Amino acid sequence: MVGDTERFMALPIPGMPGVESVMRIGKPYKLVARESRPEATEIQVGDVIVGRDSFVVIAGPCAIETEEQAMASARAAKAAGAHILRGDAYKHRTSPYAFQGLAKRGLEILAQMRAETGMPTVTEVLQTTDVELVASYSDVLRIGARNMQNFELLKEVGKLHKPVMLKRGLASTIEEWLMAAEYIANQGNEEIILCERGIRTYEPMTRNTLDISSVPLIHSLSHLPIIVDPSHSGGKRELVGPLARAAVAVGADGIMVDVHPKPEAALCDGPQAITTEEVAELVADIIAVAKAVGRPMANPKQNLSAIGE
Amino acid sequence: MVGDTERFMALPIPGMPGVESVMRIGKPYKLVARESRPEATEIQVGDVIVGRDSFVVIAGPCAIETEEQAMASARAAKAAGAHILRGDAYKHRTSPYAFQGLAKRGLEILAQMRAETGMPTVTEVLQTTDVELVASYSDVLRIGARNMQNFELLKEVGKLHKPVMLKRGLASTIEEWLMAAEYIANQGNEEIILCERGIRTYEPMTRNTLDISSVPLIHSLSHLPIIVDPSHSGGKRELVGPLARAAVAVGADGIMVDVHPKPEAALCDGPQAITTEEVAELVADIIAVAKAVGRPMANPKQNLSAIGE
Amino acid sequence: MVGDTERFMALPIPGMPGVESVMRIGKPYKLVARESRPEATEIQVGDVIVGRDSFVVIAGPCAIETEEQAMASARAAKAAGAHILRGDAYKHRTSPYAFQGLAKRGLEILAQMRAETGMPTVTEVLQTTDVELVASYSDVLRIGARNMQNFELLKEVGKLHKPVMLKRGLASTIEEWLMAAEYIANQGNEEIILCERGIRTYEPMTRNTLDISSVPLIHSLSHLPIIVDPSHSGGKRELVGPLARAAVAVGADGIMVDVHPKPEAALCDGPQAITTEEVAELVADIIAVAKAVGRPMANPKQNLSAIGE
Amino acid sequence: MVGDTERFMALPIPGMPGVESVMRIGKPYKLVARESRPEATEIQVGDVIVGRDSFVVIAGPCAIETEEQAMASARAAKAAGAHILRGDAYKHRTSPYAFQGLAKRGLEILAQMRAETGMPTVTEVLQTTDVELVASYSDVLRIGARNMQNFELLKEVGKLHKPVMLKRGLASTIEEWLMAAEYIANQGNEEIILCERGIRTYEPMTRNTLDISSVPLIHSLSHLPIIVDPSHSGGKRELVGPLARAAVAVGADGIMVDVHPKPEAALCDGPQAITTEEVAELVADIIAVAKAVGRPMANPKQNLSAIGE
Repeated sequence: MVGDTERFMALPIPGMPGVESVMRIGKPYKLVARESRPEATEIQVGDVIVGRDSFVVIAGPCAIETEEQAMASARAAKAAGAHILRGDAYKHRTSPYAFQGLAKRGLEILAQMRAETGMPTVTEVLQTTDVELVASYSDVLRIGARNMQNFELLKEVGKLHKPVMLKRGLASTIEEWLMAAEYIANQGNEEIILCERGIRTYEPMTRNTLDISSVPLIHSLSHLPIIVDPSHSGGKRELVGPLARAAVAVGADGIMVDVHPKPEAALCDGPQAITTEEVAELVADIIAVAKAVGRPMANPKQNLSAIGE
Repeated sequence: MVGDTERFMALPIPGMPGVESVMRIGKPYKLVARESRPEATEIQVGDVIVGRDSFVVIAGPCAIETEEQAMASARAAKAAGAHILRGDAYKHRTSPYAFQGLAKRGLEILAQMRAETGMPTVTEVLQTTDVELVASYSDVLRIGARNMQNFELLKEVGKLHKPVMLKRGLASTIEEWLMAAEYIANQGNEEIILCERGIRTYEPMTRNTLDISSVPLIHSLSHLPIIVDPSHSGGKRELVGPLARAAVAVGADGIMVDVHPKPEAALCDGPQAITTEEVAELVADIIAVAKAVGRPMANPKQNLSAIGE
Repeated sequence: MVGDTERFMALPIPGMPGVESVMRIGKPYKLVARESRPEATEIQVGDVIVGRDSFVVIAGPCAIETEEQAMASARAAKAAGAHILRGDAYKHRTSPYAFQGLAKRGLEILAQMRAETGMPTVTEVLQTTDVELVASYSDVLRIGARNMQNFELLKEVGKLHKPVMLKRGLASTIEEWLMAAEYIANQGNEEIILCERGIRTYEPMTRNTLDISSVPLIHSLSHLPIIVDPSHSGGKRELVGPLARAAVAVGADGIMVDVHPKPEAALCDGPQAITTEEVAELVADIIAVAKAVGRPMANPKQNLSAIGE
Repeated sequence: MVGDTERFMALPIPGMPGVESVMRIGKPYKLVARESRPEATEIQVGDVIVGRDSFVVIAGPCAIETEEQAMASARAAKAAGAHILRGDAYKHRTSPYAFQGLAKRGLEILAQMRAETGMPTVTEVLQTTDVELVASYSDVLRIGARNMQNFELLKEVGKLHKPVMLKRGLASTIEEWLMAAEYIANQGNEEIILCERGIRTYEPMTRNTLDISSVPLIHSLSHLPIIVDPSHSGGKRELVGPLARAAVAVGADGIMVDVHPKPEAALCDGPQAITTEEVAELVADIIAVAKAVGRPMANPKQNLSAIGE
């Protein structure tokens, strides 16, 4: 069956005599499917390649809170050997009473982090009306887990000529995730980095359950690169190192970790941030595992070009 | 503890000697909490009251596909004794290749359904930039499950002087749902109708697992009314009747059901729509159960006033 | 495909050129399937029929703790109009340090409850070596949720000429549940009463999420009767009434509720037990809803015959 | 609070004025808790130590089907460098119509596998009445996922002086799993090896979702060793390698994998078995990662002593 299969599923076939059940065969996504492109997609982020045979480390503050905090995180990330900086100016918070980010002032600090370290950046965009502004400040735009099926936002970033990081939804299936990527690709932008960040389960000891199996599954279903966020998966500092090592070993194309100079004073997600001291050790551990699985670290030249030109 | 408790949770207290664990006590929502208002909130929708001791039936097409289809559903809903019409002009679809709704033309048909039947309407709004337009056509704006934590959209409808229906997220906890309602209330709009539509579980036989327990729990935690959507919960036509009766019996303030003149030809969610013939029987069954639990059907005068004035 | 389909699924067909995926069609259970018997199975428990067009109430203590507590619960159940008594002598407890039941002494008290009230009984059996003993004391043997896939135990009760109540596993699918029933039926015993008791989900506010949709689904898939346990589903006293009413309305063949004279002093599951005062009100509410859905209460003659003869 | 805390939780404190909620603090398990023993437990299995700083590989057939199949798997496991053999004579099957194992004949073949290779063995025991027999044939007894809360069986193996492998239940929390281990330890047997095998979630692409985070969590909560079963977690051959590597990297004490000479002809779980050719490559990959994380492979002398003496 090819064509409008949704409509076909609604036909009264299940009720016909002799029919036991009706099932869909075939994948509903096309552009992001492995079949549509023989080779794995490589995405240029500044001078770093995400998705080639190398491994990338993205590190930095969860939220940009102050210039001092953000710059300390950025310097620690660079010193540790990370490749890309993270730092959010707009935060999605469950409570309206929680810290919501510094907005434009946060983007300016992000630009400063980028300028001083020479490292490219990734930051979250929350709504369609912010896309242009955020894109003028950051190398990669991130779609958060709660927005994975905010289809209007997906269409908007799909019109950009800029990499987009798409986090898996809180309780999304792998197929729904690829369908969300298809929304972006369908607008013309196939520079998509998937990010596994754990799924919702009944287990209360972790914030989310890292679905480590999604990494090899995505690699077999799609040509897009996939990274792992060990910070938001476990929600606990002591799990970041083990989960990051597991991510390398399972074949992920990179990891993204929260770093904070003083996690106990963080305005957002402090319990899962590693300190500026710990990030160097984390990267050293990752290098060892990456080498063991034949996956060297990315080696950027880091002569970063200007954004928005 | 009162105040910025999020920040307190990040303090390094768990690591101090003699400390086993740190737990939050107290509810994170305030305005929507039962404690903030002694009596249940009643919401005026046209001439219908949602949330008083009576029970309301919302019925109509899932998506507005054509004038004929929409009007047939609306007439059947009215004839059956329903109180409010549903009908969507904008659809959130997992696949970019699926029918996405008629947009403004759909709103015009919705207005026609309203005008001919004299019944108030509820319709989904997908993005902030559509809020004003949709509000000019419909009595209630609905926030869909995938947008339950689209906080920018919640803030936008929070600025309206118009009822908002907030569906529970695909895999949201009851507490997160109430926090989402708090985002709307925090902008000044407390005319919020909660809608339970099933949650994601491991059980594959239903589209979602209707969490019927959420109805009495919401009534004890909040002063807001709550209705049940038996169509999207089970995802199967044959479950709509039983789940609707269960919703009345458990104490819900209403139900919302998909009606389609030819479900087998529906462009969206056909397998869960009941036919225009079945809706009358459904309402009759509900009236019997509602009476048994001391909850008479709402009795609107239905002299509908103009919208957008 | 008929026969050893498990083996067929392992064939290397998915890897063959042109093959997208392999799916099973057809139901894996046979004896308990609706197709194998045109009429709903009715099960005689003492003088009560479970599964006919009538509705049964099973009530009594979760665990039999003392003669006084058990007899008080039994008398309250009888006075309220319940049809069958529950009361466990053997308890499955997550902790080895929790109360594990009175064992044989508990069975003797159960016999006393039965003798004084003239009502038939249901009680849990935990292991194969207890089956004969427990069967000599009780009219119905119950297999608990944690034992739903204890296949040796299922086979053992399958050899009895006595009704078996099979609770749904903590996180079992409806299909797995019917397969467990098939294990019993396959030994020759088709007197099986299914009991929905909630499933494990991510929602923390209830002990389990009552999957109310399983009732109409079981009725369409199988000829076996199904009852609902609103006590273990929600795990909260205040939910028992609403969930019991929902169970009647959705079409269940009965409910089973925990009753305790002093829930605050219960040795097991106190927070979910209703008091001996509340059970009468519960049954009155149920009668009203049962009447509304055309399902009168069972009307036993209650001239109970001796057990084990 | 120390003592019968279950009972305390049932007191009517939540209803008292000024009380918002009541929560339990402190761990319900004692003997298996990290606090009860400063050093990690090491378990002697034949001449192999499970749980020291080294890493063990357990491999062999899921079910013992024939002498040829079992011996071929055993030889491949030995040649690849595995330390312990697996092979089941009794199988827990969802369907009563599926292959249930060779029973005593299977144990005899297991003894032959052990004798020829000089490797110790692990095999499943399904019921209390089989414990003595199975213990006379195998070095380690395994409790399957469906039996994790079969408390009578746990008590029975708790009386042995022999290692027990306890698989995590299909949908058990980490705390429930440790409580199940406590049942065994409470009988005097603390030689317990925990085995993570994935949990039930909504994601349909894998048989279970491997909860890789449980490994570091168990290590921080308990002194018991923990291994990972990548075969039953993913349920797909192509996931075994990646998940096994992730298990090493995250810090597990070992892995257990299904090996079959002809997976396409397997009577049980064929789709997840790796071939006798693939097992050598798997072990080589694991050795590399184990070295990278400072965890050398176990180095047994393999002069196996007789069983049952």
